[in-house]
Amino acid sequence: MKQTPGKKLRVALLGCGVVGSQVIRLMREQADDLAARVGAPLELAGVAVRRPGRARDVEVDPELITTDAEALVTRDDVDIVVEVIGGIEPARSLILAAMNSGKSVVTANKALLAEDGATIHRAARDNSVDLYFEAAVAGAIPLIRPLRESLAGDHVHRVLGIVNGTTNYILDKMDSSGASFSDALEEAQALGYAEADPTADVEGFDAAAKAAILAGIAFHSRVTAADVHREGITEITATDVASAKAMGYVIKLLAICARSEDGRSFGVRVHPAMIPRTHPLAGVREAYNAVFVEAESAGQLMFYGAGAGGAPTASAVLGDIVAVGRNRLAGTRGPEESTYADLTVHPVGETVTRYHVSLDVADKPGVLARVADMFAKQDVSIQTVRQEGLGADAQLVLVTHRASDAALSATIDSLRELDIVRDVVSVMRVEGEDAS
Amino acid sequence: MKQTPGKKLRVALLGCGVVGSQVIRLMREQADDLAARVGAPLELAGVAVRRPGRARDVEVDPELITTDAEALVTRDDVDIVVEVIGGIEPARSLILAAMNSGKSVVTANKALLAEDGATIHRAARDNSVDLYFEAAVAGAIPLIRPLRESLAGDHVHRVLGIVNGTTNYILDKMDSSGASFSDALEEAQALGYAEADPTADVEGFDAAAKAAILAGIAFHSRVTAADVHREGITEITATDVASAKAMGYVIKLLAICARSEDGRSFGVRVHPAMIPRTHPLAGVREAYNAVFVEAESAGQLMFYGAGAGGAPTASAVLGDIVAVGRNRLAGTRGPEESTYADLTVHPVGETVTRYHVSLDVADKPGVLARVADMFAKQDVSIQTVRQEGLGADAQLVLVTHRASDAALSATIDSLRELDIVRDVVSVMRVEGEDAS
Repeated sequence: MKQTPGKKLRVALLGCGVVGSQVIRLMREQADDLAARVGAPLELAGVAVRRPGRARDVEVDPELITTDAEALVTRDDVDIVVEVIGGIEPARSLILAAMNSGKSVVTANKALLAEDGATIHRAARDNSVDLYFEAAVAGAIPLIRPLRESLAGDHVHRVLGIVNGTTNYILDKMDSSGASFSDALEEAQALGYAEADPTADVEGFDAAAKAAILAGIAFHSRVTAADVHREGITEITATDVASAKAMGYVIKLLAICARSEDGRSFGVRVHPAMIPRTHPLAGVREAYNAVFVEAESAGQLMFYGAGAGGAPTASAVLGDIVAVGRNRLAGTRGPEESTYADLTVHPVGETVTRYHVSLDVADKPGVLARVADMFAKQDVSIQTVRQEGLGADAQLVLVTHRASDAALSATIDSLRELDIVRDVVSVMRVEGEDAS
Repeated sequence: MKQTPGKKLRVALLGCGVVGSQVIRLMREQADDLAARVGAPLELAGVAVRRPGRARDVEVDPELITTDAEALVTRDDVDIVVEVIGGIEPARSLILAAMNSGKSVVTANKALLAEDGATIHRAARDNSVDLYFEAAVAGAIPLIRPLRESLAGDHVHRVLGIVNGTTNYILDKMDSSGASFSDALEEAQALGYAEADPTADVEGFDAAAKAAILAGIAFHSRVTAADVHREGITEITATDVASAKAMGYVIKLLAICARSEDGRSFGVRVHPAMIPRTHPLAGVREAYNAVFVEAESAGQLMFYGAGAGGAPTASAVLGDIVAVGRNRLAGTRGPEESTYADLTVHPVGETVTRYHVSLDVADKPGVLARVADMFAKQDVSIQTVRQEGLGADAQLVLVTHRASDAALSATIDSLRELDIVRDVVSVMRVEGEDAS
């Protein structure tokens, strides 16, 4: 690409933590390559941080450091603002201020996009600037660009994603070693895969934000985190994992965005689910992420890679900086938010899938008949039943045919009221069976 | 996206075979969605075919059909030319004529891009029009856009791809059922996965064209099919496959684009190779494609999906039409060819990898010492040796440490001259071991 003589693109960085410091390092180490790819050199205009004196992974010219982020994002000599602070505020105000001053924005902020994407997408449109956010979902894995652009001529039916590395690490460890949830979590914390307070990961909040972003893009509709049905993995036991394994399944925390059969609505949910070991997502080990897409014409696609970490996330940020930089030089913009389809998000009760149910039951004749009757009353048909254990330890394990979440919930409620059911040990959705 | 009142984008289609007919069907069935995504309706301006009377998979208004492709591509009312004829001529002349008349071009033509990409990329630049070719490599899998754009801020070290569905089907069948090459080929032909003349697939020509395109993009350099070292799969025996399986490997036909350690050159090669069963590419079954990318910051990425077929390829073509259409409405262009790095392609002799060598040897004392001596003379160090069979059927199976292709070839030549070596049964590269 021809270089524009004399022109430089000046980048303001908000945040200099794990990701920000890698962005600075890469901008420096790959300066020549980046200049050749963009068409002009990239220059760091300033770095806004909260604590200027703090030790960092990268050396930064002290003159570039500032605590006044607002002043930085509106400076005349800044072309592109990169936001890697995270969280809703002050990130949102700073992004809006940057856009209102005509800067293009690259962000890795999934929480903000899922909570209030509408506001910042609107500001990008109103100010004719770019908003790129490849790093917000699944770190280094190119996902936003393929979904927004490569599949722009197709019709996405379903997205099934492993989009949280912490929970995948924990579940993989439970699967491979038989560890309990708490032991696997402790190991993940020791290795730095999980935070001291793991709530955002293990309760599915992080995955839910990503699910909202993916669903919005896949279905050309506006989706927020509040639209996402969310269940975490803290209740998964070693027994659940072993039982899944014995049946040829593996338990993964999935983000699922699925169009309804009539195509007029879709569901978005994050929950643990059993998937067959032959499914391409089943082989996603450790803290890796992968997103499986089913589209009308393209068929089955999968995107796999590192979902987090400083350098992988910085790679995605840099790719966006190059795209935004090229657009600015060419006086153009990338694709805007696309919400023309404006489909409805349906409640989780309308989700149709199969279920795996384990019941702790009394050791009496006629138990199966009474349990089966509860399923029949809700029109949930049973595919297989088997009994595990004997006498006082007897468990009934049932797998249903496809049924609605509402019917299954009603069935479970009625089972809980049966005197012969001592405990509903686990209820888990079964996904990905029609896909492999 | 706001629609531009009154504006239509008119698409001329060259070729109406398996892919072209699906492009027409999708343009018709998804007309409203496509219009909303592009910002203006897409309209079919004409379809150039060789045999107008031929039965097709899709109904086309006879008035749109023409045999005069040259007139079609230069017509004033055409905005975008979609080329799905394949082959070098007349595809190249038509694409050049279209570009010289100011049309943007979407093509699925891997052979032309690999043979003479420079000419058509130059014509795109000279005429300030777009050239998009997502469908040319790995069908529906978004790969060109992620490599060109998402990884634009990163440094690609290596691309390992299963980019030919026919050969993957054959090798998978041999692996799962123990079939011979010819039986597996016959089955692939019966199922329509292989053509009556399977040369382009089984000899690696198709994969080599794709490897050239991928290497050019990954390393920002100009690469043609002639730069690609190519070996097919016709010599792979059921014994090779079984032996790999016994050692925990699977044989795949890989397209490999790898930067040298000093970063100043790279190699491009297509050949069968053994990869560990734990490698993400090992699980790619049947006629699926997948491309594994190792980048400096992003780490390991994999893109998986359908590599061929009418609808999947048409999905990629439509995605490009949407991108090109948006660019035309905005008066802008997508990224140009990027060859600034201008790295050298090194000869295959400089490739460094590990080798698996099977020798049919005489049943005499001292055989191993003499064989080992031949490896030592070329500085190829042996990692493991084992003897399979006894007496007259004895085979020596050796796996080397990393060595250059040149040194290994010299070793093999000297082994062939040893009286105690009755036959060099197989020599296969081992790949992907450092990646998982």
